[in-house]
Amino acid sequence: MTTNRLEAFSDGVIAVIITIMVLELRAPSQATLSAALKIVPSFISYGLSFLVVAIMWVNHHHMIHTVHKVTARLLWSNLNLLFWMSLIPFVTDFMGRNYREPISAALYGLDLFLCAAGFYFLRIELVRQSGQDLAMVDYHQSVQRKNAFSGALYLLSVPLAYVSVYASFAIFIVIPAMYFLPEKKLADTSQ
Amino acid sequence: MTTNRLEAFSDGVIAVIITIMVLELRAPSQATLSAALKIVPSFISYGLSFLVVAIMWVNHHHMIHTVHKVTARLLWSNLNLLFWMSLIPFVTDFMGRNYREPISAALYGLDLFLCAAGFYFLRIELVRQSGQDLAMVDYHQSVQRKNAFSGALYLLSVPLAYVSVYASFAIFIVIPAMYFLPEKKLADTSQ
Amino acid sequence: MTTNRLEAFSDGVIAVIITIMVLELRAPSQATLSAALKIVPSFISYGLSFLVVAIMWVNHHHMIHTVHKVTARLLWSNLNLLFWMSLIPFVTDFMGRNYREPISAALYGLDLFLCAAGFYFLRIELVRQSGQDLAMVDYHQSVQRKNAFSGALYLLSVPLAYVSVYASFAIFIVIPAMYFLPEKKLADTSQ
Amino acid sequence: MTTNRLEAFSDGVIAVIITIMVLELRAPSQATLSAALKIVPSFISYGLSFLVVAIMWVNHHHMIHTVHKVTARLLWSNLNLLFWMSLIPFVTDFMGRNYREPISAALYGLDLFLCAAGFYFLRIELVRQSGQDLAMVDYHQSVQRKNAFSGALYLLSVPLAYVSVYASFAIFIVIPAMYFLPEKKLADTSQ
Repeated sequence: MTTNRLEAFSDGVIAVIITIMVLELRAPSQATLSAALKIVPSFISYGLSFLVVAIMWVNHHHMIHTVHKVTARLLWSNLNLLFWMSLIPFVTDFMGRNYREPISAALYGLDLFLCAAGFYFLRIELVRQSGQDLAMVDYHQSVQRKNAFSGALYLLSVPLAYVSVYASFAIFIVIPAMYFLPEKKLADTSQ
Repeated sequence: MTTNRLEAFSDGVIAVIITIMVLELRAPSQATLSAALKIVPSFISYGLSFLVVAIMWVNHHHMIHTVHKVTARLLWSNLNLLFWMSLIPFVTDFMGRNYREPISAALYGLDLFLCAAGFYFLRIELVRQSGQDLAMVDYHQSVQRKNAFSGALYLLSVPLAYVSVYASFAIFIVIPAMYFLPEKKLADTSQ
Repeated sequence: MTTNRLEAFSDGVIAVIITIMVLELRAPSQATLSAALKIVPSFISYGLSFLVVAIMWVNHHHMIHTVHKVTARLLWSNLNLLFWMSLIPFVTDFMGRNYREPISAALYGLDLFLCAAGFYFLRIELVRQSGQDLAMVDYHQSVQRKNAFSGALYLLSVPLAYVSVYASFAIFIVIPAMYFLPEKKLADTSQ
Repeated sequence: MTTNRLEAFSDGVIAVIITIMVLELRAPSQATLSAALKIVPSFISYGLSFLVVAIMWVNHHHMIHTVHKVTARLLWSNLNLLFWMSLIPFVTDFMGRNYREPISAALYGLDLFLCAAGFYFLRIELVRQSGQDLAMVDYHQSVQRKNAFSGALYLLSVPLAYVSVYASFAIFIVIPAMYFLPEKKLADTSQ
């Protein structure tokens, strides 16, 4: 399997994930302002997940470009990541419709933790592949530390939701911001 | 990231958007002519949005072909545009099922205004990239003026829906016509 | 726009159309054999539409390969065709759930007639493009006659459904058979 | 039709299949732990099917790379396979929601049997194409024996579900394991 094929399939899956989430945004039953306001939490939940998936897509793209060869380990690490990403529409919908309940924030945080872990395992394989290239190993390890940090925060958001869902929401907002801002630099310099 | 990859991902997202809208067309509960007639507004709403998304796809394609390099600014302007486009199935469904209510026409107009704004910001980045090429800057600026005009009309359709939804509908029909007709010429000459 | 891009987008839309139809196959409410048997008409309707869309995809592919340049007329003829194809999941679901009602067979036939008409108009543009190449014009015209014949049959199925839905079903089965069988030869010789 | 086009279309369909399955995972009606636990069977069913479709995708990819030419027989064998694969979201949802009922395990096993049969017929065509290449024929025949074995097990799971659904579940778990483990070696050596 070529890197191109792996990336095209992943892109296809991610494009469907990011788009079908909107099907979970159910139109309010009545066409009044107050009914429309009731879907505001679902809308915010959707917008947040769109941003999260978009960041994952950009990062995934940068990772795949450092692939030397598509080993079985790489292939299945990638499919593992796509599996947890494919659940994002589900946890997004659940959180949007029950945003005050700890369990929905906990599930959202848990799924994003598992996505972060998926990225972590995928990158371990990339580090292995670039064994000779010290600059690349350094680069991967610095991203890996940041990844581990955000994974730990997502994991923390699971029990934290039972203390205060708003504390978990704060984590959900801080992490994309943390990725989004430096990503802008990276993308500028790494084409 | 290459222009090809950016375009392939955008095309994937747009292909899913334009196709999943049909899932919102719910079959009437009874198989009678009068029940079938009840979905006529949803059908018209679907047809209109199909045309709007198709025009956006064609325009997006022409824009991406003038890209020099995929900067972070370009990447995120594009994702911002795709976000608002991804809401089109939602506002289409809402308008089709509540076509007499101001709020549904207002939301439809608001989302299309935000798409037009998304195109505007994306093109600003393209203008920046073609700084040297005066003919290209001129071309972009003439499209930009038209874009600003249709964006302003969509914005106008939001309050107008509370005066008369039919006035907003008129705007929704006039703008695609305005893009569709000259687009035919452009496509003929710009391959 | 290149032929490749047009084909990739069309393929994306067709891949989504052929796949999302399965979402309309709702699992029976009870897990008994008699409940499962109730979805048999929906299943047959799904299988038939899968075959129809697959044949359209193969034919569309052969057509696009004879394209000389992507004119605006070609682009919009293609989008017109995709629009009517995008309604296939809707009419399939409606027919599967109301297979004894004339209106659902009539709508199914009407949509497939409009798809056939869409293919007809798309091919007119191809004939225009191959104005010099008499062998190609001959080839297109022989396909066009067959296309006109099946379009006429689909149009006939609309009023016929009000005489007997089974007569319309016969048309729905005969036409794919008519395309499927000779298609096998064409595909063998035209790679 | 080129091998590339066939693979891109198949990949598109498979990417949509693997992703839309998540739409069947309906959020529990209440945001309590006990309500959330009720979707555990659906979640397991989803995870299993994700793994099955991922394995099919990897195998499909390896098969398509041995294609010499896209004959009609190959094209329609492939579409036959995609048809049965497209039903996986349906049988997955049905099994997840009725996991104690024989009929849902029987339908799941039946569909996977038909997918295995689809792979079998597709490979027969590949064997035909590699008539001269004895090493390739040997390779295909060894895969074919394994394929026939897992197809037979899936067929067995259909009546077995009426003895014990858990016996069928054991088959559903054993077969992916049987493919997944050796697949790792193949992918390592066959790039």
